[in-house]
Amino acid sequence: MIVAGVMSGTSADGIDVAIARIFGRDLSLRYDLLHHFHLTYSRPVRSLILSEMNSSHTNVADLARLNFLLAELYADAVRKAQKESGIRALDLVGCHGQTIYHQGTPLQFLGKRISCTWQTGDGSVLAARLGIPVVTDFRPADMAAGGKGAPLVPFFDFVSLRHRTRGRIAQNLGGIANLTAIPARAKAEDVIAFDTGPGNMVIDALTEKLFDRAYDLNGNIARRGAPIEAAVRRALRHRFFAERPPKTSGREQFGREFSEALKRWCGRCRREDVIATATAITARSIGDALRHFVIKKNARYRDYVVSGGGVKNVTLMKMLAEQVIPLGLRLQRMEEYGVESEAKEALAFAVLAYQTWRKRPSNLPSATGARKPAVLGKLSLP
Amino acid sequence: MIVAGVMSGTSADGIDVAIARIFGRDLSLRYDLLHHFHLTYSRPVRSLILSEMNSSHTNVADLARLNFLLAELYADAVRKAQKESGIRALDLVGCHGQTIYHQGTPLQFLGKRISCTWQTGDGSVLAARLGIPVVTDFRPADMAAGGKGAPLVPFFDFVSLRHRTRGRIAQNLGGIANLTAIPARAKAEDVIAFDTGPGNMVIDALTEKLFDRAYDLNGNIARRGAPIEAAVRRALRHRFFAERPPKTSGREQFGREFSEALKRWCGRCRREDVIATATAITARSIGDALRHFVIKKNARYRDYVVSGGGVKNVTLMKMLAEQVIPLGLRLQRMEEYGVESEAKEALAFAVLAYQTWRKRPSNLPSATGARKPAVLGKLSLP
Repeated sequence: MIVAGVMSGTSADGIDVAIARIFGRDLSLRYDLLHHFHLTYSRPVRSLILSEMNSSHTNVADLARLNFLLAELYADAVRKAQKESGIRALDLVGCHGQTIYHQGTPLQFLGKRISCTWQTGDGSVLAARLGIPVVTDFRPADMAAGGKGAPLVPFFDFVSLRHRTRGRIAQNLGGIANLTAIPARAKAEDVIAFDTGPGNMVIDALTEKLFDRAYDLNGNIARRGAPIEAAVRRALRHRFFAERPPKTSGREQFGREFSEALKRWCGRCRREDVIATATAITARSIGDALRHFVIKKNARYRDYVVSGGGVKNVTLMKMLAEQVIPLGLRLQRMEEYGVESEAKEALAFAVLAYQTWRKRPSNLPSATGARKPAVLGKLSLP
Repeated sequence: MIVAGVMSGTSADGIDVAIARIFGRDLSLRYDLLHHFHLTYSRPVRSLILSEMNSSHTNVADLARLNFLLAELYADAVRKAQKESGIRALDLVGCHGQTIYHQGTPLQFLGKRISCTWQTGDGSVLAARLGIPVVTDFRPADMAAGGKGAPLVPFFDFVSLRHRTRGRIAQNLGGIANLTAIPARAKAEDVIAFDTGPGNMVIDALTEKLFDRAYDLNGNIARRGAPIEAAVRRALRHRFFAERPPKTSGREQFGREFSEALKRWCGRCRREDVIATATAITARSIGDALRHFVIKKNARYRDYVVSGGGVKNVTLMKMLAEQVIPLGLRLQRMEEYGVESEAKEALAFAVLAYQTWRKRPSNLPSATGARKPAVLGKLSLP
């Protein structure tokens, strides 16, 4: 099948489309990435999405419109990806949607224990526009099985990277950073996966605030600064970092409030130093997570395979190398496995949709905490 | 197949479950209603739903929780319906969800023409709890095809009531009142369907306000009052009533603001008179709609088949008879066709889900204004 995966992450910068040929199923599933395309959100769309995320004062009309608007934009992005690549015949789309809210842990709510999540971007509209079946809204089925609804990419990592003699760690650097650790000769239940904390989210927020740019291109700003050690240490005392996996994070932990606090902790310094500090927090929190929760005897971890937008941040990659090389890991990029770094998450949702189409599960209970595998998502027919 | 339909209407009083055996497909589809069950919402749940509908100051956390909470309550309702009826083996569920917002007409929104709708109650959670496939979120696919996303019950009416020699009109009296007119020997494109305006919504709102009761039981209050003719005429000047079908309405037109205005228009009178006035508005607006938009030569309308909670309102039914009998119509109830009045809408969504499962469309373009038939809803697998 030719499947398009559509991803728009918590950084709300735009839409990634990955088109792949997929065959087999479950652990014998294989894919060829055929094309990757990125569509940047317009400023008004981005600003609407950011204002709705976790909002405590919004209106249902705008939320309803956003759901339908995003479906139109996802359809535009898929069509542009098809045009650019010349791939006319798509069989299926898997679309993650834009996360508006995520509460992975159940809380009492009007007499029931409720955890919940919300990815917006309507599947029926997308299916109608493209004329093919669409799978959306992957997270609730995992949560209904007792999972945290995240992370979901580990299934893809496990299928892609498991190896008979080498342990491998897949590290994604999106808005949030997350890793999937796959010991040598791992079974599904041996996989460890969790969010390590901020990826680009805090760096982006502070770059926008202090330099009025969307992100620190190539890490050039951070390279000119020096991390403020006291602020790094203060930030790493955030309770999230000490929590044992599985665990998930988002804007709830590392959003505006955290960025503003970090700026205060930096005290009087050059603004480049603030960006360097944010960058160091991403690298150091990942290093801590590897040391505390991942690296153990017998897992034979060798390859550390990085993907996501953060790969382009040279300063971040350098700081990350300082963390992982002493652990005996080899820093690689997802490109070495035939997948463009920035296409990986979109490709993962193509693979998840393909599994759903085949009525096969695609959560990893060891990653999400679910009681059992679940067929993820909702299917819309054109 | 044994299919459960789950409906919770704009009156937000609770959940109706209809369990039916369904076979055939499209126009040869047939059903036997096996059981009907109603679960009343608890006060806190009802009040949360009412406060979220069309809300212009809410928070995404509560909306996300409501989506998951309702799925749990729908699952409870289906399980109780199964227990009460002794029907263990269900094959499929069709769940309408609770409408939070509906904008049937496209408006410009951040560069796209967007119409939108929102029915909450997560399908993945419901499928997981019941262990069977679930279809939810029926309206967006029709809107993606250019329709207003409503009304959807006309497909069910058409399948159920079309007749070779008799024209029939199905009248539903829910929160909103809507009718489906099926001329003798009708094809799908001959069916006329639209919302006529308020059903029980205004009566309920004023009964709650003036008598502190949820609704006017059996129409006893209205029977003791007399409609204020000036207020009835003022209300019937609402622009909605003059609009040509297809048209839809909801709390946007006949919510709190309308009820409060109506009370003012009634001036100084007994509070029973206000309820009688609201009741007369429902009956008279239906009569007007029939005269202006439905009754024509050659359609040979004979049977006027009423369903919905309003059937129990004896005063309303009496006022309605005064409207329809002079038009040569015979006032019947859906019970005469083997379907309990209050089970009809839930049963309709069982039928729509069944069509979706068979990959068959179930909107009537003549009713919704869609450019073409569409397979409605999103499928969640357990």
